[in-house]
Amino acid sequence: MAAFRVRAAEAGDCEEIVRMIRELAEYEKLSDQVKITVEVLRRDGFEESSPLYKCLVVENEEEKQAAGPRLVGYALSFFTYSTWEGRSLYLEDLYIMPEYRGRGLGSRMFAAVAEFCLALGCARLQLSVLDWNQSAISFYRSRGARDLSQEEGWRLFRFLPEDLRRMKANNTG
Amino acid sequence: MAAFRVRAAEAGDCEEIVRMIRELAEYEKLSDQVKITVEVLRRDGFEESSPLYKCLVVENEEEKQAAGPRLVGYALSFFTYSTWEGRSLYLEDLYIMPEYRGRGLGSRMFAAVAEFCLALGCARLQLSVLDWNQSAISFYRSRGARDLSQEEGWRLFRFLPEDLRRMKANNTG
Repeated sequence: MAAFRVRAAEAGDCEEIVRMIRELAEYEKLSDQVKITVEVLRRDGFEESSPLYKCLVVENEEEKQAAGPRLVGYALSFFTYSTWEGRSLYLEDLYIMPEYRGRGLGSRMFAAVAEFCLALGCARLQLSVLDWNQSAISFYRSRGARDLSQEEGWRLFRFLPEDLRRMKANNTG
Repeated sequence: MAAFRVRAAEAGDCEEIVRMIRELAEYEKLSDQVKITVEVLRRDGFEESSPLYKCLVVENEEEKQAAGPRLVGYALSFFTYSTWEGRSLYLEDLYIMPEYRGRGLGSRMFAAVAEFCLALGCARLQLSVLDWNQSAISFYRSRGARDLSQEEGWRLFRFLPEDLRRMKANNTG
């Protein structure tokens, strides 16, 4: 029987994490947006005095000696701040490779994120899901998530560096 | 003529910032969710080795000697992390008191946030707006923001500590 271990990521995992980041972006049909490199991910998570994110991975211990991937899932999160409730956690990605789904690995990893979130005294755990991704929506809703976009009407906006440069140039204040 | 200065917040500003956080939440009709205290805001922003947020304020220099508020606006942001593009900035709140609007203070403060974001090498600036808040939506759209909820279908989900405790309790992994 296969043994899977959920553990904190290490610097040496970054190559496989980037491979899975690309797989997830492809599933989300947004892979043209992926610009991250192994070097940047390693620096930001493992070589900064204040790492920019926390990452968990699922290791496939059975396949250590065999062919196939060593890591089959990851969950990457970071601290955010709510002016209403204080320190919070945001789950950027939770991914299990398709061929390793249906064994409860997503649940185990998400429970580990929940535990981490509670241990650090976070007031909330938030995340974003694409509206057509019904399996992700069911996964989170069955665990108690509220859909704030539907219930309160929150919409997400993004500025790119070119927008910011224009604003800086126009600032006469 | 009134002189207004946009500057980094200091620990001594937290009482007025919390006053404005409440004003903004009231405008957003969600003030029952505000639990932050002056002590928590001060600790998280000014007494931690890695502060959890950055805050700018607008100071009304004319009224220093007179009645009326010393601070008339604030912008609070924090770092986030994109697995596609790396270090990013999230603008949690941008607020100008209603009686001080129409003088370009929001633009000046937002330009200062943009400058800060660029200086720190962030790949994106993101924020959330309530769908009925047309004046905020126009403000951001006229500066180039893309509405990711509409264009890509992102929806925001939230878990509260009671959800997380249930998951932790059920985790047998």
